[in-house]
Amino acid sequence: MAYLDIVTVLAVLQFIVFAMKVGRARARYGVKAPATTGNEIFERYFRVQQNTLELLLALLPGLYLFSRYLNPLWAAVLGVIYLAGREIYAATYVRDPAKRGLGFALSMLPILFLLIGALVGALRQATGF
Amino acid sequence: MAYLDIVTVLAVLQFIVFAMKVGRARARYGVKAPATTGNEIFERYFRVQQNTLELLLALLPGLYLFSRYLNPLWAAVLGVIYLAGREIYAATYVRDPAKRGLGFALSMLPILFLLIGALVGALRQATGF
Amino acid sequence: MAYLDIVTVLAVLQFIVFAMKVGRARARYGVKAPATTGNEIFERYFRVQQNTLELLLALLPGLYLFSRYLNPLWAAVLGVIYLAGREIYAATYVRDPAKRGLGFALSMLPILFLLIGALVGALRQATGF
Repeated sequence: MAYLDIVTVLAVLQFIVFAMKVGRARARYGVKAPATTGNEIFERYFRVQQNTLELLLALLPGLYLFSRYLNPLWAAVLGVIYLAGREIYAATYVRDPAKRGLGFALSMLPILFLLIGALVGALRQATGF
Repeated sequence: MAYLDIVTVLAVLQFIVFAMKVGRARARYGVKAPATTGNEIFERYFRVQQNTLELLLALLPGLYLFSRYLNPLWAAVLGVIYLAGREIYAATYVRDPAKRGLGFALSMLPILFLLIGALVGALRQATGF
Repeated sequence: MAYLDIVTVLAVLQFIVFAMKVGRARARYGVKAPATTGNEIFERYFRVQQNTLELLLALLPGLYLFSRYLNPLWAAVLGVIYLAGREIYAATYVRDPAKRGLGFALSMLPILFLLIGALVGALRQATGF
């Protein structure tokens, strides 16, 4: 399952890159800590990072539990779709927050697949079916 | 330990439901991305989600480490109390933030039990007692 | 690997302590929920907690994957440096956000070491080198 762990590390590193872009935007647009508002473009970078934080926390248990109960290869594939979806989300959100829908769906749906798959697998094992 | 994994998935799905309610409140109360302020009721939904994000990140390691060092069934029971506590927290916070104390305690205390239990168990094993 | 689990629990408990300080600052500086702005000192405590939330989510997979592919003892050592870095970060940020650089570096660099080490280890195993 090394490829699943590779996807995991890439998802965390992607999140760190988004966080570094927030730091750069902080300097570029003059938003001094502790403020997180005051410049619309900074706020877009910030929201991309925050939303990715939320999704990443849901992705990681989904990846490992889907892998345990169903299939590690499909877990990794869904993880790669998530990674691509997040890139689209970040790129579109910074240009125009109203257009973030596609990237959001492409990163949220794999998470829902992973979690519901894991739930079905765990329920099946717990009930003996 | 499939039942522990079921509790884990339910806790993550609960968090996703709270996040979806933030999205719905965003539309209903006219708070356009990237803003997260400007309407008191929206902010309540948002804070419920944010606080759940914080607690969920503490819950998951607690569940698995308590399970490894002490008891998986008790870990799952504490996880179920957390789930109920979060439901109470979310329902009361949206109505009146000043009344969030009970739900907060019911979801925070199981986490502290899990983490302190895990710490005691790991220390006992590391020191050979 | 009990010592790695001890570091994990300490990192989560440290985060909870930062969160409790936010709650105390909320009362002391009169910032009523759901607001998270309005008092500069409160906002510093809040940003310490939020930044620690972000780093903790990156730390935990790093700790376990570095441990699996490279070395659990070095993972734990890097985790202890992270813990110390976060304490410095929290103490300096609350006094003067402009001086948060050292504590940030001391807690971010161990995470990058852990993640990149884990990535190299997992790639090496996946490709058979």
